[in-house]
Amino acid sequence: MPPSPIRKLVPYAEAAKKKGIKVYHLNIGQPDIETPPAIMDVVREMDFPVLEYSHSAGNESYRRKLVQYYQKTGIDVNHQQIIVTTGGSEAILFGFMSCLDSGDEVIIPEPFYANYNGFAVAADVKVVPVTSYIDSGFALPPIEEFEKKITSRTKAIVICNPNNPTGYLYSREEMEVLKQLILKHDLYLFADEAYREFCYEGTHTSAMHLTGVDDHVVLMDTISKRYSACGARIGALVTKNKAVLDTVLKFAQARLSPPGLGQILGEAAVDLPDNYFDKTKAEYQLRRDAIVERLNRMPGVFCPNPGGAFYAMARLPIDDADKFCQWLLEGFSHDQRTVMLAPATGFYSTEGLGKTEVRLAYVLNVQTINEAMDCLEEAIKQYPGKTSR
Amino acid sequence: MPPSPIRKLVPYAEAAKKKGIKVYHLNIGQPDIETPPAIMDVVREMDFPVLEYSHSAGNESYRRKLVQYYQKTGIDVNHQQIIVTTGGSEAILFGFMSCLDSGDEVIIPEPFYANYNGFAVAADVKVVPVTSYIDSGFALPPIEEFEKKITSRTKAIVICNPNNPTGYLYSREEMEVLKQLILKHDLYLFADEAYREFCYEGTHTSAMHLTGVDDHVVLMDTISKRYSACGARIGALVTKNKAVLDTVLKFAQARLSPPGLGQILGEAAVDLPDNYFDKTKAEYQLRRDAIVERLNRMPGVFCPNPGGAFYAMARLPIDDADKFCQWLLEGFSHDQRTVMLAPATGFYSTEGLGKTEVRLAYVLNVQTINEAMDCLEEAIKQYPGKTSR
Repeated sequence: MPPSPIRKLVPYAEAAKKKGIKVYHLNIGQPDIETPPAIMDVVREMDFPVLEYSHSAGNESYRRKLVQYYQKTGIDVNHQQIIVTTGGSEAILFGFMSCLDSGDEVIIPEPFYANYNGFAVAADVKVVPVTSYIDSGFALPPIEEFEKKITSRTKAIVICNPNNPTGYLYSREEMEVLKQLILKHDLYLFADEAYREFCYEGTHTSAMHLTGVDDHVVLMDTISKRYSACGARIGALVTKNKAVLDTVLKFAQARLSPPGLGQILGEAAVDLPDNYFDKTKAEYQLRRDAIVERLNRMPGVFCPNPGGAFYAMARLPIDDADKFCQWLLEGFSHDQRTVMLAPATGFYSTEGLGKTEVRLAYVLNVQTINEAMDCLEEAIKQYPGKTSR
Repeated sequence: MPPSPIRKLVPYAEAAKKKGIKVYHLNIGQPDIETPPAIMDVVREMDFPVLEYSHSAGNESYRRKLVQYYQKTGIDVNHQQIIVTTGGSEAILFGFMSCLDSGDEVIIPEPFYANYNGFAVAADVKVVPVTSYIDSGFALPPIEEFEKKITSRTKAIVICNPNNPTGYLYSREEMEVLKQLILKHDLYLFADEAYREFCYEGTHTSAMHLTGVDDHVVLMDTISKRYSACGARIGALVTKNKAVLDTVLKFAQARLSPPGLGQILGEAAVDLPDNYFDKTKAEYQLRRDAIVERLNRMPGVFCPNPGGAFYAMARLPIDDADKFCQWLLEGFSHDQRTVMLAPATGFYSTEGLGKTEVRLAYVLNVQTINEAMDCLEEAIKQYPGKTSR
C-alpha cells in the first residue's frame, strides 16, 4: 500500500509551526467555506430514540431526495439506482471492487487524484496512466493514447470532472469522444464528479448526460465539497447498470450501512435554496482569478487557467517539486510565514513526471491567498534549486 | 461477492407485512435499547463552522478518550495505537487488507459472523473454517483441529468474543490456548470484541489481556452495540504492532477520515457514568434467560445457554433452516403474527452444516420475546418439514 504523497510532508509542517512559522495550507482540499448552518441545524434537531443502522443502500428518504438533486443537474435516475456511500472514497472503492476482477486494469488520465492508487491496491487492480500535459492545460489526451494502453484486461476508464488535481473541465466534445471509446471497447466509465458545482468556464457535462451508455457509466459522487461537509463522510454511487448495483449492494451490506448522522445532513442539503451554490462558486472564482494571476506574474512560472474545482497546477522554475515543497517548510520563511503545497509527482503514475509542478488548492480567501503568493514568490527567488527556465 | 445470508429473507418479511402480519424481528443485531440521550445531546450541542475532515486515524481528542475507556477494561494502549474506523466493519476490512496478502488464509471457528466472508472477498483472502458444535455450546474447537488447517498461507485466526452468532464467551484458558497457537505458528490473532460489555457468565478475556503477543494481536472494535449506536458507524482498530498500524494508516488515509459526527458521539460516550452498562446488561440477561428457557421447553429444541453478546443459537426439529425461516414468513402466521429468524447455514462456511439451527437475536423486550416464542412454538408444531428428533 503506497503512502499518501501529500501527507508525507505533514511532519515538516508540524515542525515549522513549532518554530512559530505560520503555514499557509494550499496543500489539501479542505474548504474553509462554512457548512450551511441550516443543514447543521437539522442534525441538531434530530429526534429519535435509537441511532439505528440505516438501509445498506442508505435511507430511502435520502435516496429519494437525491433523485431531486440529480434532476436539477440534468441527471435522470431513480432512488433504486443510488447507493449511499461513506464519502466519495467508498463509492470509488465499491466501483473498483464491483466492476473489476483481481489483475484487471483501469486507465486514468494523469496527473490524477492520488488516492485512486490506494483504492486500486485495495481492489487489487492495476492503474494504467495516460499522460495529460500542463501546456495544453491538461486537456483530454488524444484518443489514440488511450487506444495504445487498452489490453484484454482493461475494464474501465476513470474521469474526474472537473478534475482534481488539475482543475480541468472536460468539454462536451471530450466526453463524447470518451463515450465512443468505452462503447468500442466495452469499458466502464467511472465518473468522479465531486466538484460538479464548481465550474467557472462553460458548463459541466456529466457522464450521466451521455446517451446510450447506461450500462457503462458509474457515477462516484460526494457531498464533501458541494456543501463543505467533508467530515460527514457521505457520498453516493449512481448507475443504471443493474448488475453493478446488485454487486455494489452486496459490498454495502457487508459493511452494514453508511453513516446515519451524515445522511441526515445530506438529506437536508438537497433542500437548500437553488441559489446556494452561487455565492460559494463566486467566491472560488475570485480566488482562482487571484491565484492564477499571481502565479503567472512570477518569472518562470506557468499556471493554466483551471475551468473548475478549486485546484490549480503550476509549473515552477525548480529542480524538484518534492525537495522544493519540503524546503518551503524546513528551510524557508518570509516574515515568519511559509506555504505548504502538494508536489505534483504524487499525482503522476509515470515515474519522473511532475517534478517541476505543484498543486495549489485555493481553499483560502483572496487576502490570504495573496499573502501566500507573496511567500511563494520570495521562496522561488531564494530556493537553492532554482532553475533558469 | 456472496449475498448477505440474512438479507435474502427481507423480501419475504416485507410481503408478510403487506398482508397485515406482524413480524417479530429476531433476525438481526439491531438493539432496541435507547442510544444514551446524553451523547446525542453532545452532538446536538456541536458548535463549529465547518464539518471538516478529521485526522485519518480519528480525532486525537477521541483517541485519547478511548485510551481511558480501554484502561477501564484492563487494556493498556496509547492513542497512537488506536485508529478510528467507520464501524467495526472497516476495522475488520483494514485488518484483513493490512495483514494478509492476496491468496492468504485466515482460520475462523464456525459458525461465524457472515460478513467476514464479504471482507475476505474484498481483501481477496480465503476463509478456512474450524467447526465448533452446538452440543458443546460452541466452545473453542480442540487445538488439533486448528493445527490440521494451518498451511504456509495461514496468516491469522479470527476470534469473536463474546461470539456472534453463538453467544459463546471464550474462557481465559481458551484464550491462552489460542495464544500458544499463534506464537507457535507466528500468526495474527484478530479479536472482534464488539460485545465485550455483554457477558453474563464469568468475565471477558480480551485478546489484549494476553501477554507476550503484542505484535500478534489486532483488536477490531465498535461502539455500535456498546452504546446502541449502530448508525454512528464508529469503530476502532487497536494494535501494538507498529508495522500493522503504519499500513492500516495508509488505508485510512486513502479514505480520508472516519465519520465526524459519529466521532463526537463516540467521544461523549466514554464519559458516560461507569454504571451505564449495568442496566443494559441486566436487561439483556433477562431476555437471554427468557428466550433460552422458552426454547429449551419446546419439544425437540435445544439451545445452549450463551455466556455473552445478545444471540442464541438453537437446534430445531426441522428439515432445513432456510426453508423453515422462509416458510415462517411466507406460509405461517399465528394470530396474524410470525417470527423472523436467521438460518444458521449462512454462518457456517462448511457446506451442509447448520441446516437444523437458527440464530435468534434477543433485541426485543421480554414480553415481546415471549410473544415471539409463542409463535415459534406453534410454528414448529405446524411446519410440514418437522422432523421427529
